[in-house]
Amino acid sequence: MHSADIVVLGGSAAGITAAITARRHHPDKSILLVRKEKQVPIPCGIPYIYGTLGGPEKNLIPDTVLDSNKIDLLVSEVTQIDRKQCVLATGEGEVRYERLILATGSIPTQPPIPGVDLDGVFTILKDVEHLVLLQQRLKQSRNIVIIGGGFIGIEFADEINKIDSKNVTVLELAANCLSLSYDAEFCSEMETLLLSRGVTVRTSATVARIVGDGHVSAVEMKDGRSVSADLVILGIGAKANVDLAKETELRLGLTGSVAVDRTMQTSDPAIFACGDCAEKISFFGGGPSPLKLASIAQLEARIAGANVYGLRRESDGTLGVWSTAVGDLAMGTAGLTESMAKDRGYEVVAGTVETPNRHPGGMPGTAPVKVKLVFEKHSQVLLGGQVRGTASVGELINTIAACVQKRMTAEDIAMFQMGTHPALTASPIAYPLVNAAEVAISCMQ
Amino acid sequence: MHSADIVVLGGSAAGITAAITARRHHPDKSILLVRKEKQVPIPCGIPYIYGTLGGPEKNLIPDTVLDSNKIDLLVSEVTQIDRKQCVLATGEGEVRYERLILATGSIPTQPPIPGVDLDGVFTILKDVEHLVLLQQRLKQSRNIVIIGGGFIGIEFADEINKIDSKNVTVLELAANCLSLSYDAEFCSEMETLLLSRGVTVRTSATVARIVGDGHVSAVEMKDGRSVSADLVILGIGAKANVDLAKETELRLGLTGSVAVDRTMQTSDPAIFACGDCAEKISFFGGGPSPLKLASIAQLEARIAGANVYGLRRESDGTLGVWSTAVGDLAMGTAGLTESMAKDRGYEVVAGTVETPNRHPGGMPGTAPVKVKLVFEKHSQVLLGGQVRGTASVGELINTIAACVQKRMTAEDIAMFQMGTHPALTASPIAYPLVNAAEVAISCMQ
Repeated sequence: MHSADIVVLGGSAAGITAAITARRHHPDKSILLVRKEKQVPIPCGIPYIYGTLGGPEKNLIPDTVLDSNKIDLLVSEVTQIDRKQCVLATGEGEVRYERLILATGSIPTQPPIPGVDLDGVFTILKDVEHLVLLQQRLKQSRNIVIIGGGFIGIEFADEINKIDSKNVTVLELAANCLSLSYDAEFCSEMETLLLSRGVTVRTSATVARIVGDGHVSAVEMKDGRSVSADLVILGIGAKANVDLAKETELRLGLTGSVAVDRTMQTSDPAIFACGDCAEKISFFGGGPSPLKLASIAQLEARIAGANVYGLRRESDGTLGVWSTAVGDLAMGTAGLTESMAKDRGYEVVAGTVETPNRHPGGMPGTAPVKVKLVFEKHSQVLLGGQVRGTASVGELINTIAACVQKRMTAEDIAMFQMGTHPALTASPIAYPLVNAAEVAISCMQ
Repeated sequence: MHSADIVVLGGSAAGITAAITARRHHPDKSILLVRKEKQVPIPCGIPYIYGTLGGPEKNLIPDTVLDSNKIDLLVSEVTQIDRKQCVLATGEGEVRYERLILATGSIPTQPPIPGVDLDGVFTILKDVEHLVLLQQRLKQSRNIVIIGGGFIGIEFADEINKIDSKNVTVLELAANCLSLSYDAEFCSEMETLLLSRGVTVRTSATVARIVGDGHVSAVEMKDGRSVSADLVILGIGAKANVDLAKETELRLGLTGSVAVDRTMQTSDPAIFACGDCAEKISFFGGGPSPLKLASIAQLEARIAGANVYGLRRESDGTLGVWSTAVGDLAMGTAGLTESMAKDRGYEVVAGTVETPNRHPGGMPGTAPVKVKLVFEKHSQVLLGGQVRGTASVGELINTIAACVQKRMTAEDIAMFQMGTHPALTASPIAYPLVNAAEVAISCMQ
């Protein structure tokens, strides 16, 4: 029989960070992480397996991070939670705990489309064997259709397109790819880039059925058009993995995930949940949030890990911060877009600027960077920001995320002292974050 | 005779931003920028003229930014300010103003060393003809000695070292280069890199005299050692250019710069000052601050430009935010270093982490990134941060700058939702800004 003060169920990003945080906050407690996978893929790295990295074995979370934090590891599948103990499936018996953290993640959404169970139709599971199989099948395929033009869809499209002799088509239901996270003018830049790289992008494309005789052969749309397909990837979202929680009669939330309060405590005070399996509320207004992102999972894991022996931290709710990259183009988003903010009923003022990301323009690596900030008009509070540029966008969006999370105003941002350097950033005069705030302020007067 | 509602004296980064800000806040006012230089070099780009860019003409601030903001330009030298008008030297007569903004910048410090007036000894003036002359003299020189290992010194050293057949030596008074802005462990990394690139670095090196017969031939140190020199560059700091302010009997401050309050107003309510010429106070405690940085000048210019017809903005004081780059190494700093904080009497806790800047480590461009955060121990308030890595450091340090300026605590940072991406940032589990805060928190418990 196994036993630990703190047991974490799930070995992906949320589980690991919850365990590390528990170690930092509770140095005297024993911590055991239980997961069913021998090896754990890096979730965000999965698309890059197929073009840039070369194989699933190049995209694994190293277990050394557990060792160095004195976290024990048990690879086994938990099938039932008997309050105060876990029962394992593999005959290893019980794992007893004082505090349990659920980080069981999510599973891909299977859309209600005829033909989704045909051979050659793949969802993206965070499972090495599944990812190896996908790589083998990609080798045998020529026409690849990706259903869903969110970030997973476009990253997969571009990576697969790097392999010789593939025809890659993205089918997106909405009017733009990435439209759940960016305003249209940013989305269309990504679409244009994908097209220039040889990926076919079809927006406003409603899939009617996936067809084939045993194996997939085509995807048919509602307007009657059809795309040949040897292989189909479904990238339309994910739902919380709540099988264990349900069985344990933990309360579920409005979106069907494990109900938690702001401290990540479930309906059982000894059980916490974090990451994709946990119910979320929005930072904007506090209503239920469907977002599932690494930035959120990490926050929740740092809360859950700290709180297991007395509440130390609370969540503000989901901001929605992430970035993506295709070729040299990088895009980041934090908080609400202009259209999302208007849909929710905010009266907004946006400030957008574009400028070279180095100064002078003759410095190596100079490329344009664009920043759009969206403010609530009356309070001047920042609701969100979007950035398009090159690699530094990955950090620039986090400055914006910090500003949104601390509910800074346009004036707060206009009063920033921001570092600049010819080889690293835009010029001080044109620094885009500050100037986007200034543009918005001049529209508010 | 010229006349404008708002006249800005000085055409470098502070003057331009003051004029643009005045335009944004006072759309109906006429604005005239008066400067004595026909062309204005980009201040931070000056070192890069000599290796990367190829000539001073590649490093100019374009006047189009004035046109597009409807700012008139007069190239002329103002020799006297007669309250409510400027008298010009060139016979163009008076320039009448309602509000005046002084942005007359700084001039390099001339150290009290014998031999500084020898031929071949250069300070770095923001003047194109001077920079052209320096380029010509560099071509004729083989042994170049740079006195001062601050950021200007090391950037010049590396750029000149890119030219064929130059022996470049940096002489730094303190125990480390960059020691006014980084803790020793960061400084020594820069020194090691410079050495590996062929630059000679001598620290704890007190210059006794510059010697030569008309033209410089060597630099002698107090310990008796000597370095051959055909050309010497002095990079030991700058002092406010206050000639006009003195003549006008504007009050000067404790450091000898033009006295201003937090609104950038001088002792004459119709005259504002910003940038290197203006007196500064520290964000930390409010005492006089000797810092002269683009990040500060820009803030002050945005305050002065907004405030000329009624006070809208106030300064928090100087943070000290800037970054530098040599080869692929980039370093950024914001606020107080650990040693500076201790010297000022703070009891501090520092958290340092180092991690790959991409994930997994097989992603192209992967290199280590190090973040050090310094907190006041009792309040947990962030006092400063230092970053070492590659280009994205230029933006990462600005997230830290925003945190310092908003006096965030370690817990605030630990509760961030930060975006991550395989091609752009460190992994979510290891994201260094958050983890440095977490490390510090675990030391505070």
